[in-house]
Amino acid sequence: MVPAGRAKPITAGRALGCTGPGLRVLVVGGGPAGITAASTARETDATAEVTVATEFEDVAYSPCAIPMVFGREIPSFDGLLMHGPEHYRGKGIDLRTSTTVESVSLRERTATVGGEPLRFDRLVLCTGFQYERPPLPGADLPGVHFVKNLRAAMAMDKELEGVRRAVVIKGRPLGIEMATGLAHRGVEVDLVDDEPWLMAEYSDPDFMKRVQESLEKLGVRVRLGVKVEAIEGGPDGRVRAVRTSAGALPADLVVFATKTHANTRVAKQVGLRLGSTGGIVVDDRMRTSEAGVFAAGDCTEVPHGVAGIPIRGLTATHAVAMGRVAGANAAGADRRYEPVYGPWAMVAGTVQIGGVALTRTLAEAMGIPYMLAEAEGYSRARYHPAMMKIRVRLLADPKTHRLIGCAMVGGENLKERADFLAFAMRKGSTLEDIARMENCYSPPIGALNEPMALAAQAGLRAIGKSW
Amino acid sequence: MVPAGRAKPITAGRALGCTGPGLRVLVVGGGPAGITAASTARETDATAEVTVATEFEDVAYSPCAIPMVFGREIPSFDGLLMHGPEHYRGKGIDLRTSTTVESVSLRERTATVGGEPLRFDRLVLCTGFQYERPPLPGADLPGVHFVKNLRAAMAMDKELEGVRRAVVIKGRPLGIEMATGLAHRGVEVDLVDDEPWLMAEYSDPDFMKRVQESLEKLGVRVRLGVKVEAIEGGPDGRVRAVRTSAGALPADLVVFATKTHANTRVAKQVGLRLGSTGGIVVDDRMRTSEAGVFAAGDCTEVPHGVAGIPIRGLTATHAVAMGRVAGANAAGADRRYEPVYGPWAMVAGTVQIGGVALTRTLAEAMGIPYMLAEAEGYSRARYHPAMMKIRVRLLADPKTHRLIGCAMVGGENLKERADFLAFAMRKGSTLEDIARMENCYSPPIGALNEPMALAAQAGLRAIGKSW
Repeated sequence: MVPAGRAKPITAGRALGCTGPGLRVLVVGGGPAGITAASTARETDATAEVTVATEFEDVAYSPCAIPMVFGREIPSFDGLLMHGPEHYRGKGIDLRTSTTVESVSLRERTATVGGEPLRFDRLVLCTGFQYERPPLPGADLPGVHFVKNLRAAMAMDKELEGVRRAVVIKGRPLGIEMATGLAHRGVEVDLVDDEPWLMAEYSDPDFMKRVQESLEKLGVRVRLGVKVEAIEGGPDGRVRAVRTSAGALPADLVVFATKTHANTRVAKQVGLRLGSTGGIVVDDRMRTSEAGVFAAGDCTEVPHGVAGIPIRGLTATHAVAMGRVAGANAAGADRRYEPVYGPWAMVAGTVQIGGVALTRTLAEAMGIPYMLAEAEGYSRARYHPAMMKIRVRLLADPKTHRLIGCAMVGGENLKERADFLAFAMRKGSTLEDIARMENCYSPPIGALNEPMALAAQAGLRAIGKSW
Repeated sequence: MVPAGRAKPITAGRALGCTGPGLRVLVVGGGPAGITAASTARETDATAEVTVATEFEDVAYSPCAIPMVFGREIPSFDGLLMHGPEHYRGKGIDLRTSTTVESVSLRERTATVGGEPLRFDRLVLCTGFQYERPPLPGADLPGVHFVKNLRAAMAMDKELEGVRRAVVIKGRPLGIEMATGLAHRGVEVDLVDDEPWLMAEYSDPDFMKRVQESLEKLGVRVRLGVKVEAIEGGPDGRVRAVRTSAGALPADLVVFATKTHANTRVAKQVGLRLGSTGGIVVDDRMRTSEAGVFAAGDCTEVPHGVAGIPIRGLTATHAVAMGRVAGANAAGADRRYEPVYGPWAMVAGTVQIGGVALTRTLAEAMGIPYMLAEAEGYSRARYHPAMMKIRVRLLADPKTHRLIGCAMVGGENLKERADFLAFAMRKGSTLEDIARMENCYSPPIGALNEPMALAAQAGLRAIGKSW
């Protein structure tokens, strides 16, 4: 990450033309980064006047849970809103929903929000992501969806009541979760991807084979290497089918789970520096290239702990952590955001998958040397009826044996293992450290041998090393 | 831990009067430490002649699962034997079961095993533990049990078919698991402990209150502060009741889950140095005070990673890890065993409890200064129907904020968290490290905020610190 935002160093407090009684902080975006930035700014400076402007109706909601509500694993949308607007207003935040930031002048420190002028001292951009919208004929027909907005998802949930067949486009994480959720709901699902395996951008094909089989067991038809050519409408004007390189797939509903890009409309308007991923460049204080302007969440790019290169498109927990740093620093604090290792885990069909940092696929693509350490272990005692197998593939630097990546597939508790390995990587841990880790053994909840340790041990044994 | 076993330094290989073709290693004990020591000795030196002598009928079995078989959570004892004797014989190990090591001469390097003389070059003691047997009248009546040996547990399982009421003595981990298992089986259980709360030696009373309530929900009568005075027999010569300071408790079966001690019969016979816990003193190579004699598992004491003092009575995974080091080094390798932090977790009634290193109770008892960092979090998304609350209490050094202990109580996945925190402690991690940890968020398997991070954050917030 290139140092940024140091062109015009600013001091904490009210140096930038503040005329009111408190520092004025304008946060654009009400997702996890934005709402956290706003709350943290108020916590940091109780006199700060914090405004949040969002194009959506709600703030602080959990879009990640939408596929599980569709699948009825989560019974309703009710719980997905953490707090209503009153909560934030009660915390002294001026919350402006369903609005647009039409223009921003950094020189004047003014913005036009929903037609109204607004003065600010600090600007925090948390504008999130937008989906890549492939220029396909019919892509805007009724019944074609992108999943993001809670209200739109509620409407889609009603629409699903009449849906017998759906096509999900792209086997990325959201696509896999949508296919899983719709299959659980009894919808016939085609999952279409033009790549040779699911999540092909970064996942390892043999692990994704397990995911594919698990989806197929739920009745999902996984169509790999298939290109979408057009969305076809019916006589009622709604979507009727998806035309692909492998023929037409009937569909009452279509979900695009395409790639996401940083939403940088406002960033571009004020001339912020963008990086190689298209995200806003920030330094480790979440400062952008313009003094007094911060950014956080999916609209930014941050450095990867192993590869060093900037990445974006992380999780809500990353957005929250970035928002905390940006909000605090916008209000005068001096906090740092550390490079990310990116632990992730999800349910895919009936299995779990997860990982941290590099996969073999990524290491190969990036030309990063690695050694493999891989094994299958048990989630509980070998003989426990609820035991599930967990396969762990660790990647380590061949010289130092420091961990640089992990992929896992299995039945349960991958989230906790991904968290563990991300922490271990941040601490510079080696295969030897993992091979020697202490672990709990209790038959109903843990096996004699921890799968991660077995993987590290197998890798060391394979090169004739002890631990 | 005092350096030990260096009085007569020995070199690897066959320096000690070996006359046969290979180094002769005698392992006493066939539990996880012993059987691992034997296997590792063979792996380290393929020509080694390894003998294992055990008083029991089986080796490499899982006594930890006995309460869950009694409770029918694990359907039978069949799976609990990992390998039969043939497996080890096939690996070149001379396995002698149901036998006794009658005498050992270190000077002669000879032992008498089941009446037969045996020569050895290296001795590895893995003699495990024995229960404290309180000198109570009636403690040896039929129907009174100590749980350890698999065959005895199988017989007890049959006996349980006619049991309506049972008394479990001592609310230590095994006692809690036995009470849980027997309650699941429909037996009326009294759990009796003379202390004011369960696991009072090291657990925090408020956390154990949760365990107590959970046991009571299963129908277990938890009787604290109650002393056992005698076991009473009936006219049939079997146990009929347990006489206590709170009156007589009818019982068709009694289980003692009393304190364990190192089994040091052989160690004393050969004059090994014993430590403050009564366990065999070993150095970080698992060498005892006598050259060529190693020890591993529950008969030894090893240094605690935080407190520095020697401890014993760890888990089977620790026994395996110690056995590996002892077995390898007995066969000429030079491996080290690191101080332990002791992650543990178990199911107690319907909740899970677990921890690492110090509790508040232990820190108070030992006069170790600490600060608390505590919070309750969620195992899955707040609104997921399967979400369970997890309470995490972290202890940290008040000056450096380095973690020195943890206690947890909650519904699920404490084993993985205890493993995480034990690793973090070994790496010298601080509350700030935990507060800033990255974590997976996926509604069905992980919450937006990791409970361990929430605890660390709460602790830092309470002292006005950021992270």
